[in-house]
Amino acid sequence: MPKFKVSYAPSVRRLPSYLLLAKQALDHGDEYISGTLIAMELNLEPIQVRKDLSITGIAGKPKRGYPVVPLIGAIESYLNWDKRVDAVVVGAGNLGSALSGFPGFKQHGLYIVAGFDADPSKFGGLIHDSPVYPIDQVAERVAVLGVTVAILTVPSAYAQDVATTLVASGIKAIWNFTNIKLKVPDDVIVQNEDLSSGYAMLSMKRRIRSAMMSEDAD
Amino acid sequence: MPKFKVSYAPSVRRLPSYLLLAKQALDHGDEYISGTLIAMELNLEPIQVRKDLSITGIAGKPKRGYPVVPLIGAIESYLNWDKRVDAVVVGAGNLGSALSGFPGFKQHGLYIVAGFDADPSKFGGLIHDSPVYPIDQVAERVAVLGVTVAILTVPSAYAQDVATTLVASGIKAIWNFTNIKLKVPDDVIVQNEDLSSGYAMLSMKRRIRSAMMSEDAD
Repeated sequence: MPKFKVSYAPSVRRLPSYLLLAKQALDHGDEYISGTLIAMELNLEPIQVRKDLSITGIAGKPKRGYPVVPLIGAIESYLNWDKRVDAVVVGAGNLGSALSGFPGFKQHGLYIVAGFDADPSKFGGLIHDSPVYPIDQVAERVAVLGVTVAILTVPSAYAQDVATTLVASGIKAIWNFTNIKLKVPDDVIVQNEDLSSGYAMLSMKRRIRSAMMSEDAD
Repeated sequence: MPKFKVSYAPSVRRLPSYLLLAKQALDHGDEYISGTLIAMELNLEPIQVRKDLSITGIAGKPKRGYPVVPLIGAIESYLNWDKRVDAVVVGAGNLGSALSGFPGFKQHGLYIVAGFDADPSKFGGLIHDSPVYPIDQVAERVAVLGVTVAILTVPSAYAQDVATTLVASGIKAIWNFTNIKLKVPDDVIVQNEDLSSGYAMLSMKRRIRSAMMSEDAD
C-alpha cells in the first residue's frame, strides 16, 4: 500500500496553479477572483475548481468569487508553504543546478541550502548560492544542517545507495528525480518525479491528435 | 475544456514504470512477470496493475503473469514509443541541458536534435551532442529540421512569446516546463510539467506524516 497516501491527489497537484493565478490577481490589485475565470485559464470545469479549492477550506462568494488574499493564505497554509523548509540537493549536475535555481521553490518556502556531488571539480563551488560538498560528507553535513528533506538527482545506478545513506543521516523525505523505485523505511516519504510520465502523457495526446486530424481528413 | 483529453491519465502516467520493470525482467532473462510482483514493486494494488495494463491490450496468464516481450511491445506501441520522435529544446540552460541528456528519453524514441538559447556564449556549443543555435533562428531551423515537438525551458517571462513563435514555425506539441499557462491554437498540444505540483504532493505527505507521528506520540 502507498504510505502517506494523499487523498485528492489530482486536486493537490492543481493547487499550485490556483496559487499562481491568485498571486497574479493580487499583483493586479484585484480583491476577488472568480472560479469561472480560474476554470477558463486552466482549461477546467468550474465545478472542478470549486471542488479542488474546497479541500483548503476556502469558500467563494456568489457573483464575486474567491477573496484573493484569503485564497492565497488558505492554499499556502494547507500545503504548509507558509513555513520555511530547508533541503539539500544530492547530485549537483544540470538537473540539480536547475532545481536549485528554480524561482518557484523559494516562493513556496523551499530553500536549498547545500548540494552534494561525487565530482571533485564541483567541490567548493556553488549551485545558485548554495555550497557544493563532496558526497561522502553528506551524512555529517545533513546532521549539522538539521535538514530532513533531500532532492535526489544522482545517476540511477547510485540512487539506492545514496538514498540509504541519506536515510541513515536523518533525511525523512526524498524528492526522487531518478527512475529507481527507492526502498526506504516505512517512516520515510518518497515523492517520485518521473519525467517519463509526462512524456507518456504528451505521447498519448499526440496519438489522439493525429487520430482526430485523420478523421478530419476523411 | 481540455483539448486532446487523455482517458485513463493516471494509468498512462504509470505505464513508464511498468515498462521499466518489464525491461529489467527481460535483462534478467525472465519470460514472464507477475502482476503481483509489479504491484509490490510499485506499491500498488494488483487489481490496479491489471486495469492499467489492460488499456494497452495486453492480457496476463493465470499463475504466470505477463509475457515480458509482448508486454514491452504493447506498452511501447500504445504510447507510440516504438517510433522515433525528434524534438528541439528551447532554452539551453541547466534544465534544458539536463533534459537533453536524460537517458530515458532515447529509450522512449525521443531524440533531441537541437537546442536554442538567447545567450550568445552558448551559440555553436553543444548540449549532449546537439548543437545550440540562436533563439532568433528557431523559426527557420524548426522548418528545415521538420520537427514538430518542442521542449520549452525558457524563463517564464519569455514563455508565451517563444511559444507563439514555435507554433508559427510549425511546432504542434509543446512540453512546457515553465509555469506559464500557454495560449496556443486548438490544434496544438501542450503538456505542462509543473515541478510545483510534485512539491505540493511532497508537502502534503510531510503534513500527513507529521500528523501520524504526533498521533503515535500520544
